[in-house]
Amino acid sequence: MLEFDKTPSYQSVRDAAEVLDGVVVRTPLLESPALNEKLGGRLLLKCETLQYTGSFKFRGAYNTISRLSDEQKEKGVFAYSSGNHAQGVALSAKLLGIEATILMPEDTPAIKLANTRGYGAHVVTYNRYEENREEIGKQIADEHGYTLIKPYDNYFVISGQGTTGIEIHEQLVDRKLEADFCVCPAGGGGLIAGISLALRELSPETQTFSAEPEYFDDTRRSLELGQRVENEPGHRSICDAIVTPTPGEITFGVNKTTLGGGFSVSEDEVREAMRCAFHYFKCVVEPGGAVALAAILSDEIDIAGKTAVAVASGGNVDPALYAEILAQPS
Amino acid sequence: MLEFDKTPSYQSVRDAAEVLDGVVVRTPLLESPALNEKLGGRLLLKCETLQYTGSFKFRGAYNTISRLSDEQKEKGVFAYSSGNHAQGVALSAKLLGIEATILMPEDTPAIKLANTRGYGAHVVTYNRYEENREEIGKQIADEHGYTLIKPYDNYFVISGQGTTGIEIHEQLVDRKLEADFCVCPAGGGGLIAGISLALRELSPETQTFSAEPEYFDDTRRSLELGQRVENEPGHRSICDAIVTPTPGEITFGVNKTTLGGGFSVSEDEVREAMRCAFHYFKCVVEPGGAVALAAILSDEIDIAGKTAVAVASGGNVDPALYAEILAQPS
Repeated sequence: MLEFDKTPSYQSVRDAAEVLDGVVVRTPLLESPALNEKLGGRLLLKCETLQYTGSFKFRGAYNTISRLSDEQKEKGVFAYSSGNHAQGVALSAKLLGIEATILMPEDTPAIKLANTRGYGAHVVTYNRYEENREEIGKQIADEHGYTLIKPYDNYFVISGQGTTGIEIHEQLVDRKLEADFCVCPAGGGGLIAGISLALRELSPETQTFSAEPEYFDDTRRSLELGQRVENEPGHRSICDAIVTPTPGEITFGVNKTTLGGGFSVSEDEVREAMRCAFHYFKCVVEPGGAVALAAILSDEIDIAGKTAVAVASGGNVDPALYAEILAQPS
Repeated sequence: MLEFDKTPSYQSVRDAAEVLDGVVVRTPLLESPALNEKLGGRLLLKCETLQYTGSFKFRGAYNTISRLSDEQKEKGVFAYSSGNHAQGVALSAKLLGIEATILMPEDTPAIKLANTRGYGAHVVTYNRYEENREEIGKQIADEHGYTLIKPYDNYFVISGQGTTGIEIHEQLVDRKLEADFCVCPAGGGGLIAGISLALRELSPETQTFSAEPEYFDDTRRSLELGQRVENEPGHRSICDAIVTPTPGEITFGVNKTTLGGGFSVSEDEVREAMRCAFHYFKCVVEPGGAVALAAILSDEIDIAGKTAVAVASGGNVDPALYAEILAQPS
């Protein structure tokens, strides 16, 4: 049986890179000469929006599911997810010929529900403000003997997400660049844990920071306090992909040793970052995927004379919301 | 003095690739498992939307301007363009430390006007429905001794655009694929001429087809008749980037020997293709850049069991128009 609860390391990210070679998209690290001029520094956007399923989640899901035992594969996999992890699990399972069942909030953007079903997964919905997904999930998984693929607190998931960091480093080396900062969206913290493990080893001078929406800046506050804290309940956010209540246990174990701190951005800043990605990069970025870019565009970081990487972690946004945001003045 | 009027060849495209190596973005060739399943074939999208300046035009402009004599560089360059070539020339000139003056239609999308000025070019406007850009352009260029960089009828421009084709081939080989079809937008025909020269040499089994908006399908009709014909005047199109009156002289000389034919698509099909690129690829594609994808999604080509490449040639679309198109039902 695979051990999901171990602490990932640079080596486990390397191992994931071997599994994922030729399976995932090596997503581009884009740069805009016009935006660089405006910022007075160099900003590189790592476009996991262009990953299969429209987000980085496919990396960790495939790295995990491909390693299951034959017995586990036979019984099928299960996941709870606000959408991007669901699609990553669904596509991975489909490619590997495994059945997938996904528990999703009933207010998940329609595009994510449709896409998850489109990959052949069974979708079950719940009310995210009144029900506990871990409890419902455990019940369903236990009943059918499914293997639960957690969205972030899983050794192989974090390691898979970390392959994004190896690519960032290699793509910077190709341009003879070293990043001063890497800013990455944080929900449960799996992507940033994996990326920061990779960058700490490969580029020790690079400081990695989390970015989160206001009222959901649990990672930023947990880093400041040195222990996991929860978000105040009752708030909502357009950043549906990253509104987790608290940092993950395994992910925070990593992040408290690898990160330089965290940033919190307003909803207006997120919207502006989405328009910026449209204008300068021709990339569709979903709200939760745009928080790192929003942080870099905000007054909180000054990249003048510096080189910064922003991770655009996903692009699964409903067209109506995207149209509304584009139509707003910058 | 450089000769701009020669007929480009596979070798001249190869030479351009050396000049452009490390200068242009090696744009990704994206694929969507979900869309492939829907189409029953493999569709690869060559995203020149992610090129610097948001379109392929930077390739040909840089390949040409970088080769000018010191005297020509000293006097500056001039171009007339509906926008994408303007930005390509403006950025190339800026990177090479040369002055650029650009003549643009006064109804050019605001985003293209602003971006061209943003690269430091001088912009002069004219009425595209009543004035002749070639005449005004010649006058301005002669008066100041500027070197005119034509948007497509130029040996180095066509050769530079053709480097897109070399990349397509290399990226297909990486995936152990060979394309049955390559469909590419055609305005003046420079991009498709360059790409088809590359693919004819590197992948002789691949058939290359042009795609154009209805009422502006001069390349399709010229290919059928074996000679250059003009579009009927008086029509308008949202595909502002590719509404040229007739195929270029040099470009058609190439295209009549390299292409398998052409497709014409309706405005509704273009809009649907833009929504498709949003949904499946998270890519912002402008109307003129979406005609190849539109052709492949239409009933005119069946890619079931086949491998097809669609070139998405540009992403410079005004946010208001893009929002309007996204908000329409599919």
